[in-house]
Amino acid sequence: MASGKELCEGVEWRIRVVDGSSEVLVPPTGLARKVWLRTKGLISGLGMKVRMFLKQAWDMGANDPRKVIHCIKVGLALTIVSLVYFMRPLYDGVGGNAMWAIMTVVVVFEPTVGATLYKCLNRVCATCLAGFLAVGVHWIASQSGDRFEPFVVGASIFILASIATFSRFIPSVKSMFDYGAMIFILTFSIVAISGYRVDKLFDLAHQRISTIIIGTSLCILVIMLVCPIWSGQELHSLTVRNMDKLSDSLDGCVRQYFTNSNGEDDQKLQGYKCVLSSKASEESMANFARWEPSHGRFNFRHPWKQYLKIGASMRSCAYCIEALNSCINSENQAAESIKKHLSTSCLKVSSSSSSAIKELAESVKKMNKSPTIDLLVEEMNSALEELHNDLKSLSHLLNPPTTAENQISATGLVPFMEIIPVVTLASILIEISVRIEALVGSVEELVKESEMKDKIVAKEEKPEGTMKALQRV
Amino acid sequence: MASGKELCEGVEWRIRVVDGSSEVLVPPTGLARKVWLRTKGLISGLGMKVRMFLKQAWDMGANDPRKVIHCIKVGLALTIVSLVYFMRPLYDGVGGNAMWAIMTVVVVFEPTVGATLYKCLNRVCATCLAGFLAVGVHWIASQSGDRFEPFVVGASIFILASIATFSRFIPSVKSMFDYGAMIFILTFSIVAISGYRVDKLFDLAHQRISTIIIGTSLCILVIMLVCPIWSGQELHSLTVRNMDKLSDSLDGCVRQYFTNSNGEDDQKLQGYKCVLSSKASEESMANFARWEPSHGRFNFRHPWKQYLKIGASMRSCAYCIEALNSCINSENQAAESIKKHLSTSCLKVSSSSSSAIKELAESVKKMNKSPTIDLLVEEMNSALEELHNDLKSLSHLLNPPTTAENQISATGLVPFMEIIPVVTLASILIEISVRIEALVGSVEELVKESEMKDKIVAKEEKPEGTMKALQRV
Repeated sequence: MASGKELCEGVEWRIRVVDGSSEVLVPPTGLARKVWLRTKGLISGLGMKVRMFLKQAWDMGANDPRKVIHCIKVGLALTIVSLVYFMRPLYDGVGGNAMWAIMTVVVVFEPTVGATLYKCLNRVCATCLAGFLAVGVHWIASQSGDRFEPFVVGASIFILASIATFSRFIPSVKSMFDYGAMIFILTFSIVAISGYRVDKLFDLAHQRISTIIIGTSLCILVIMLVCPIWSGQELHSLTVRNMDKLSDSLDGCVRQYFTNSNGEDDQKLQGYKCVLSSKASEESMANFARWEPSHGRFNFRHPWKQYLKIGASMRSCAYCIEALNSCINSENQAAESIKKHLSTSCLKVSSSSSSAIKELAESVKKMNKSPTIDLLVEEMNSALEELHNDLKSLSHLLNPPTTAENQISATGLVPFMEIIPVVTLASILIEISVRIEALVGSVEELVKESEMKDKIVAKEEKPEGTMKALQRV
Repeated sequence: MASGKELCEGVEWRIRVVDGSSEVLVPPTGLARKVWLRTKGLISGLGMKVRMFLKQAWDMGANDPRKVIHCIKVGLALTIVSLVYFMRPLYDGVGGNAMWAIMTVVVVFEPTVGATLYKCLNRVCATCLAGFLAVGVHWIASQSGDRFEPFVVGASIFILASIATFSRFIPSVKSMFDYGAMIFILTFSIVAISGYRVDKLFDLAHQRISTIIIGTSLCILVIMLVCPIWSGQELHSLTVRNMDKLSDSLDGCVRQYFTNSNGEDDQKLQGYKCVLSSKASEESMANFARWEPSHGRFNFRHPWKQYLKIGASMRSCAYCIEALNSCINSENQAAESIKKHLSTSCLKVSSSSSSAIKELAESVKKMNKSPTIDLLVEEMNSALEELHNDLKSLSHLLNPPTTAENQISATGLVPFMEIIPVVTLASILIEISVRIEALVGSVEELVKESEMKDKIVAKEEKPEGTMKALQRV
């Protein structure tokens, strides 16, 4: 160890200076040197990290400018709500409680319209409900005398907070009113307890409600008017995008296997992984989309839940593609003759399946039943039939058990083990096509439901007529 | 339609009265009747729904009493923090801003220790940072004269809020400081803008910080002392539980297929689906676990990230089990003779793989390298070898292409198509065992890393010694 250290200390450090000569770095000695080196290392490491971080941030902004727009929207909304402070009549109007409006903007402003509306409506409703309840509890408490007042208030807070917290665990409440339950606890506690110290309780409740309404209305205006991002539209595009990815992966994997080409785009082949990992985001988007009013081609009450079913069908296909991938990359390689024998029909199945998925994506995109999907499914089924026949005739190529090993190459027959990977691949392909038929079913259901909703909306809006026309503008 | 209606109206409704006789229900006539029926239907429907909802809530509480305990903890913490209002010296101490303490408790109290600590630390740090910055900005604004003050303040809010919002999109910031960034915007805006109206800005900032510290300390005390739920411990148990489920599913599916028994517990067979869907919860738990101090057998800086790798390995096994399941339930049934031929070796592979997973679960549970895992993996590999040999000899049972169809039953040979499902199953089983070896690797890494961390901690704590002893108590 000691000799190693000596060796290390004996090394001469040179740097090339701009003029081309090199200069010997004479290391400073002792403790000072160590501190200097350590500090330099730390600073340069930190600088590196900061540079990496900034680059990452910059790339993110460049890739998705909508994120930058969202940030500007938040800044804008906050600056506008600050005007409440600068304008004397408005400030006096809310009795100096203007900070509630700022707080509202900060906490309810979300990237999508649906998420913001969810929070706004939850916040307003929960605040009103809790405010009234708290004023009632305060009245009861004040009737029970000075001595018992703290106990009545404390007990009511304990009970209501516990119940509201419990309700947040219930799935149906959680998906619709999670934020509302929290705001309920918050407002109830603050108003109920303030009754003990603040004389003008009604004023407090009233100010809190009006500042929250100022904040939420501002948020809703900004989020809906400045480059709005709709959860529903996002969910819709995500579904279409995932279908395209699924189709590309399926086709690419099978083609790469049979043509032995490495020219396929690796990112394209791995596209199915996006489908596997998008369950959580699909669910949250569908959840928020329910709060959104009619936008674009989507009516209020568009069948968003159906997208979750489509997502589940897509994932079940993606699981199979995962298995397909593993058998493509497996060590146990198949005989070339067998591959050749099955390649035409396998390629046909994969290309017809992937064009069926592409057509489904198109159908979801345009939100109408595709005229060609039945034809494509038929084509897929006939390709499957062909694959079946090819599989049946595979035994011709098999090396009969009685043939001696050394005769194999002469006869061109292959041992049984070498057909297993291809057979597995073929049967997974068959399974995928079964799952694609389920996907076709769920997409058709979506289209049907959405057309039905459209008709209902059209019927409801007939008397007014202008509403729809206005929305189209 | 008209006759149907008459028929319907002609029907006599009778109810059996308690004494055994029956009574004719004479329907009230006209509009009143309709309203009455509609109202009754609505009320009974609503009553039904409420009853269902309450039952659901009750079941949830009964199944997981820790949820109920969490609710009581929230109520307790809120009631304690309310004392600030009832005790004059405390209330005066924070200048009537006691509501910040309540708000803190409501928003930072989460079910697990890790999540609560994450929010508490984020809230305190972000509030301090934003408070200082806001006071600085206020000072600059006040130097720039009355006319420019609103502009300076507004511009600083716009810029800082936009940057902080943008930072929330960056994955590394999002996972550690998402809540902190929001609180930063909140505090900065409120303090900076209050400077315009409130004279004693320092007091405001100081009061806000001290109330938040009161709230967070109370939360930390309650969450850690009253039946604490640790994210780390939860993640650990979830991982162990998922491994057990994976093992049961694998073994159950294969056994059900080969023994044709329907006696297997369906819930057990579907266990792998839990593994497929637990990615999001694993990630959030691992994220919160990082904030937790040493607890139970887990040190601070326990390798929580390794659990995510184990989770990913488990999911890759679960994808294969999905494919396995689909080939078990496929329409294309295999010949019994082929099933019999492969059943011994397939069952051996599945049982040895599933006992390897069980052993891994045990190893994670005890957090030490299992002494028998190498043996089990070897056993699995020898079972695989056997399966390979059985597959090789499968061609003996195959119907040679030249044999006429009507000879099949006589010779006992089977057509090629009927071996495909079993061969597919076998090759998926082989793939699963490959993936299990990857799982073994990631579990071993976890155990190694955790032992290493243990050693480091033991070394660091040697001089004190008592710390560790205290934690063990």
